[in-house]
Amino acid sequence: MTAGVPVEPGTVRIAVDLLGGDGAPAVVVDGALRAFGADPDLHLLLVGPPEAADELLGVVHPADRERISVRPVQRGVAMTDDPRRLSRADTTVRAAVAAVVDRTADAVVSAGATGATVTAAVLGFGRWPDVRRPALIATMPALAGPVVLLDVGGSFEARPGTLARHAVLGAAYATVVHGVAHPRVGLLSVGTEAGKGDRARRAADPVLTLAPLPPGAHYVGLVEGYDITSGDRADVIVTDGFTGNILLKGIEGAYAMAGGPPASGGAPRAAALLGVAGTVVVCHGAARDDDLASGIALAAHLYRRGATAAISGLLADHARDGHLTGPGTAADGPGRTDHGADERTEETP
Amino acid sequence: MTAGVPVEPGTVRIAVDLLGGDGAPAVVVDGALRAFGADPDLHLLLVGPPEAADELLGVVHPADRERISVRPVQRGVAMTDDPRRLSRADTTVRAAVAAVVDRTADAVVSAGATGATVTAAVLGFGRWPDVRRPALIATMPALAGPVVLLDVGGSFEARPGTLARHAVLGAAYATVVHGVAHPRVGLLSVGTEAGKGDRARRAADPVLTLAPLPPGAHYVGLVEGYDITSGDRADVIVTDGFTGNILLKGIEGAYAMAGGPPASGGAPRAAALLGVAGTVVVCHGAARDDDLASGIALAAHLYRRGATAAISGLLADHARDGHLTGPGTAADGPGRTDHGADERTEETP
Repeated sequence: MTAGVPVEPGTVRIAVDLLGGDGAPAVVVDGALRAFGADPDLHLLLVGPPEAADELLGVVHPADRERISVRPVQRGVAMTDDPRRLSRADTTVRAAVAAVVDRTADAVVSAGATGATVTAAVLGFGRWPDVRRPALIATMPALAGPVVLLDVGGSFEARPGTLARHAVLGAAYATVVHGVAHPRVGLLSVGTEAGKGDRARRAADPVLTLAPLPPGAHYVGLVEGYDITSGDRADVIVTDGFTGNILLKGIEGAYAMAGGPPASGGAPRAAALLGVAGTVVVCHGAARDDDLASGIALAAHLYRRGATAAISGLLADHARDGHLTGPGTAADGPGRTDHGADERTEETP
Repeated sequence: MTAGVPVEPGTVRIAVDLLGGDGAPAVVVDGALRAFGADPDLHLLLVGPPEAADELLGVVHPADRERISVRPVQRGVAMTDDPRRLSRADTTVRAAVAAVVDRTADAVVSAGATGATVTAAVLGFGRWPDVRRPALIATMPALAGPVVLLDVGGSFEARPGTLARHAVLGAAYATVVHGVAHPRVGLLSVGTEAGKGDRARRAADPVLTLAPLPPGAHYVGLVEGYDITSGDRADVIVTDGFTGNILLKGIEGAYAMAGGPPASGGAPRAAALLGVAGTVVVCHGAARDDDLASGIALAAHLYRRGATAAISGLLADHARDGHLTGPGTAADGPGRTDHGADERTEETP
């Protein structure tokens, strides 16, 4: 989907983590350059080593250089870093978030370790009320229209309460970002009959049946792996971040093997982080330059649409109607969960 | 893969559950007819209502009718049946298993509810020593060669001990059925670096690193969704049945969207049940006639290869070397699991 994001007018300033991703900084520089060339109102804040930023500045037309600024930071987060150290304040991703907080930039894009980006976003922006687990959202361009899949790696938790909240987030995202007036929301499982699935799905399905969704949205029950690509049964498909991440990569691999994605588009390699009070896009750790460019375009699109504020507003209305009841809802219950109660957030989409 | 199963000589008698699957009995009859026409040494034992069997007998050349026999059973298992009643003795799937036990048939094929088939197989054949959870194995025809994926819906459990045992089963299957002399075994997760994944994978990865595999096989660590279709990193990919089932269907859906599977072949709609002392193939609940035919061909292939006995023999050698230590291994530990300790076995592949 991100490849097909329309370029709209309106200044937008994207803070780009130059040290995020396997190919950083070279791939990030190339990707930023692509995005920059495609969008005349795009401003970049390059967060990373000045020498990497200089490489980009060196190839940009002098007249365009005013659209680029640099925040010098020497340290990135390595994929192999101890998760407890992901929240270090001196990293590029923390600095990119800080630039949005201090209003130097409008949105953050990183291809670094997802756990570090989620942690940085939570610490810098704070979570939305009622959202304990921010979710990574990927949009699959199905023939029938966009299919919003979440979570694709924000957290691995599969508690009923988390899945129910993600259903609300996903429905709001489909409405605000994709203009789906009446999103159909499904829970991913191994069959469509009620009762199909592992313990977590069997617990979550009745909770979702009763959970109020934003206006216009409705829950359609269990859906299957096919539905992600077809879009026949649901516009929003909810799952835990472990299953979603594997499925997204499996579909991407299948398209690659089949000689390319369908005409409607392939599996996205950039995902929006939803549930924090700022605009954040996470790119695949193995992102190529066009993936980075897609991620930057997605971040620009979300900012120009006022997506974060609009979704947050929709959720606030929803909460005012008494539909969300704070982090400790009964839906989470005391029961055990399938994907663990305290899973770390840590994967690339 | 099953579509490409070679037809080999040698009489084989397949017990076919006429009442298994969404389109039963019509689709099963059509599928059986296709398989029957393609394999001159194939004998069918049709287990179900005689009037459904008569339909098949009516269109077969009189000279071929001696290759078909019928075991009249009126009751199938409905997808909506209470799981506690899945083990009813009067169902077609139980009767099909019984036919193999009493040596009237050599293997069972059913497109009925997987839970019922697994239960029937466990009750009728018994489990192999050291196998607490039989696994459904699907073979993905990747360019680099076949990729064996398990579990795709036999059980949803993700305990380290179960995943480790499934690694052994998968490696033996790759060697015996696909002739892979040195199978590379990977654990499906969200990244390839050690430590990536949910709680269950983080617990299982070190167990698999130490777990001895059958001769020739070795553990390559964590793999990702892409690796299922590419085959670049592993020949055997181990996961829990919930994730595997969703991934398999997601890949099937992606191929359908992309205009068809790659030249190497698509996602299989029939899976072998491994871990019970009999040859059983489970077809997709929504199987078409060609899927049923593929399932019957796979069952015939497994029987002709002596796969069940050969794999069981390989595992017995392995156990004699002290590598498997009974159902209550330390690897299972007292810890909690992500996909539940007592997940029902219940899904279609």
